[in-house]
Amino acid sequence: MKPLRATALDAAAFAPFGEVIEAGAATRQFPINQGSTVRYHDLARIDPGEDGHAIVSIFRAQPRALPFEVSMLERHPRGSQAFMPLSGRPYLVVVAPPGERPATENLRVFLARADQGVNYAAGVWHHPLLALQAESDFLVIDRAGPGANCDEITLDEAVYIDLG
Amino acid sequence: MKPLRATALDAAAFAPFGEVIEAGAATRQFPINQGSTVRYHDLARIDPGEDGHAIVSIFRAQPRALPFEVSMLERHPRGSQAFMPLSGRPYLVVVAPPGERPATENLRVFLARADQGVNYAAGVWHHPLLALQAESDFLVIDRAGPGANCDEITLDEAVYIDLG
Repeated sequence: MKPLRATALDAAAFAPFGEVIEAGAATRQFPINQGSTVRYHDLARIDPGEDGHAIVSIFRAQPRALPFEVSMLERHPRGSQAFMPLSGRPYLVVVAPPGERPATENLRVFLARADQGVNYAAGVWHHPLLALQAESDFLVIDRAGPGANCDEITLDEAVYIDLG
Repeated sequence: MKPLRATALDAAAFAPFGEVIEAGAATRQFPINQGSTVRYHDLARIDPGEDGHAIVSIFRAQPRALPFEVSMLERHPRGSQAFMPLSGRPYLVVVAPPGERPATENLRVFLARADQGVNYAAGVWHHPLLALQAESDFLVIDRAGPGANCDEITLDEAVYIDLG
C-alpha cells in the first residue's frame, strides 16, 4: 500500500472540492448586534439540489487509529454535505475530484483543525468521517429529497494515511 | 426592572419557538459508515422560505456581563435561524412567541449547554446572541434571499437576566 501524506487544510487547496468553513476564509465579514458580534458571512455553498432541501444532523464518530487504510470513497451526486467539528479535535479529510472513477493518485488528504469545517460540493468523492483522538461530534448540513444520493466505490489500490 | 429567571434549555420547553439541536433530541438515529458513526438525523426545520436559500456563517460573539438588561428583541419573518455553539461554552437564549408585539410577561429565558444549538422558527422573537464567559463562535444557518428579513422592537418594559 502507498502512503498518503496529509497537508494542512486551507481554503485555496480545498477549492476544487468545496469550501472550508472557517472565519478566516470569509470574503465578507461585518459587525452586527450593536457591535457585539462579527458575522463571517456565507461560508459554504449549501446545495440541496432543485428537488431537495437542507437538513441539519449531528454525526457522533468514533476515532480512527493511524495508520488508517483508505480502500473506498463515497459521493453524494444530488447535493452538498458540510461537516463542522463540535468537539474541539482535529480530523482527516480525504477527497478526490468529481468523475466516474477517481484514480488513487488523485486522492488528497487534509488535516483539518478543530475550528475548520468542510463542505463537499455535490459529486465530490470523499471518505466517510475520520475523527481522531476520541469520540467526536460534528454538525452536518446535507440534503433530504427524492432519489438515490450515495455512490460508493472501492479503490483499485488501497492507500494508507499516517501523520508520521 | 423585573428579573427574568433562566431555565435549562430542553426540547419540550423550546418547542413553541423552534428546535433544540442536540443528539439527545433526535427522533431518528442510526449507525452509518460501517458502524463507526451514529447519525442523529434531521434535528431542525431549516426554513429559508419559498424564495430564499440556506446559508452558513460563523458569528463571533463577545460575552455579555450579568446581570444583562433585555430591552429589545428581533425576528426574521422570512426564514429560520439556527445557532450551534463551537467554543464549548454555555449561552443564553431569550425568546417570545410570534405575534405583532410580544408582552414582557411572555418572554422566556433558557440557559443552553455548550452542546445544544437552537433553531428559531421564522417569525419567533429572540434576543441577539448572548455569549457568556468569553468570546465564542457559533455556526449559524439562516436565509439569504430577497426582501427585508429583520424586524426589531423595543420592549415596553425592560427586564434583566441574572443567573443568581
